[in-house]
Amino acid sequence: MILIGERINTGFADIKQAVLDKDPKPLQQWAREQAEAGAHYIDVNLGAVSTKPEVMCWMIEKVQEVVDTPISIDTNKPAILAEAIRVCNKKALINSTTAAKEKLDQMMPIAAEHKASIIGVVMDETGTPKNAEKRVENAGKILEKAMELGIPTEDLLLDPIVMPLKFMQDQAKAILDATHQFTLFSDPPPHIVCGLSNISNGALHKKLLNRTFLVMAIANGLDAVICDVLDTELINAVLAAELILNKQIYADSFTRQ
Amino acid sequence: MILIGERINTGFADIKQAVLDKDPKPLQQWAREQAEAGAHYIDVNLGAVSTKPEVMCWMIEKVQEVVDTPISIDTNKPAILAEAIRVCNKKALINSTTAAKEKLDQMMPIAAEHKASIIGVVMDETGTPKNAEKRVENAGKILEKAMELGIPTEDLLLDPIVMPLKFMQDQAKAILDATHQFTLFSDPPPHIVCGLSNISNGALHKKLLNRTFLVMAIANGLDAVICDVLDTELINAVLAAELILNKQIYADSFTRQ
Repeated sequence: MILIGERINTGFADIKQAVLDKDPKPLQQWAREQAEAGAHYIDVNLGAVSTKPEVMCWMIEKVQEVVDTPISIDTNKPAILAEAIRVCNKKALINSTTAAKEKLDQMMPIAAEHKASIIGVVMDETGTPKNAEKRVENAGKILEKAMELGIPTEDLLLDPIVMPLKFMQDQAKAILDATHQFTLFSDPPPHIVCGLSNISNGALHKKLLNRTFLVMAIANGLDAVICDVLDTELINAVLAAELILNKQIYADSFTRQ
Repeated sequence: MILIGERINTGFADIKQAVLDKDPKPLQQWAREQAEAGAHYIDVNLGAVSTKPEVMCWMIEKVQEVVDTPISIDTNKPAILAEAIRVCNKKALINSTTAAKEKLDQMMPIAAEHKASIIGVVMDETGTPKNAEKRVENAGKILEKAMELGIPTEDLLLDPIVMPLKFMQDQAKAILDATHQFTLFSDPPPHIVCGLSNISNGALHKKLLNRTFLVMAIANGLDAVICDVLDTELINAVLAAELILNKQIYADSFTRQ
């Protein structure tokens, strides 16, 4: 399972303030904690705090001062991505392109040029799909572009777009169905990732919903996740699911704690 | 989700002693607690304590004195089943037949005669299948026999046979695959059930493994389970999974506690 730590995001008040203050300490503290918790990537998201590439680069550099975990560059702006990817010390993950032609033409060549991995979110010019079929159709467009540019399947992570259960309850099943269908694209299939916390947006019992949905998605073929890697119960559920799918060898000591 | 309370089983020391002592209190206490916890059936298992049908009948009668929850008659002995089913006040669940011809010929007609539900465990004369294909083949035999006798699909619960993860780790994936394939038999498909606790037999972190496997099985189409219905975390995971599959309408108060 590829774990992507979600916490260095200006959507969180402490990160927003740290970026505004040019104070690296909160970023570095979260970077260390997520790396220690086993994150394979540290997601870095500038959000709407600034449109300047150098601010994103500062965030990444400050993270890299304290951990050597690869960076997930979380931006939909090609200008920011083009600068940010140059300061990454390790092979980066680009988060993300969509299936919209303009985005594919802007973001995918940067992935190809830098031999980076890239997340393909299965929305297009018409917005977020409402069913599994349209998700699969958009995934096909992303996969086709990746093949055209020589991006190997193992560097592509398809994202079926998780929607809030409380407000769009019928979407969760469509997302699980799409996830299963993504596994049939190729052998080996591309990775499949989701931004997990959206499932519990606005709901009570967020951790229970996150954990349960993630296990169901893993059962359908998901193998990467952007999440709270410090949620021990969540990670233990992932570890148990990997044993059940025989991806790790059983040991009594399989849990984190 | 059809919840079948596993606790009135002479495999548990207190139940064994109660049956030997003809003391109804432990049975009645567990019957009440499981019914209050939402069990749709109370499983009653005499095990090897006696071969006399009247002892099984006594157990069932004592349970029925305190709860009106239907009984799951847990025996592989036709002579015990034939007597036990006559004392059940509500439509019973027969637990179980296998796909072995002799068992099918003995147990299924009793289900048909009494219009009971019946669990079909997908083993046959050659033992427990080692792969999904043989599980599906045996399930087909059970389904065929049910159709021949006019037992409706909704009264049939297929059991893919859960094996201990610690000792037969490759089986869990085969069980999940078989579960998914069972859903393709008919529309509506038969119910799919498992004896959950076997997955964690001999393992540490039993509740975590039970809960994670159950959620993965639900994601693959399982809709009934023989389990510890008093395990609140387990039941909350089931409730969350049912929301995710849009089988229950989301409410903030969806958990048991």
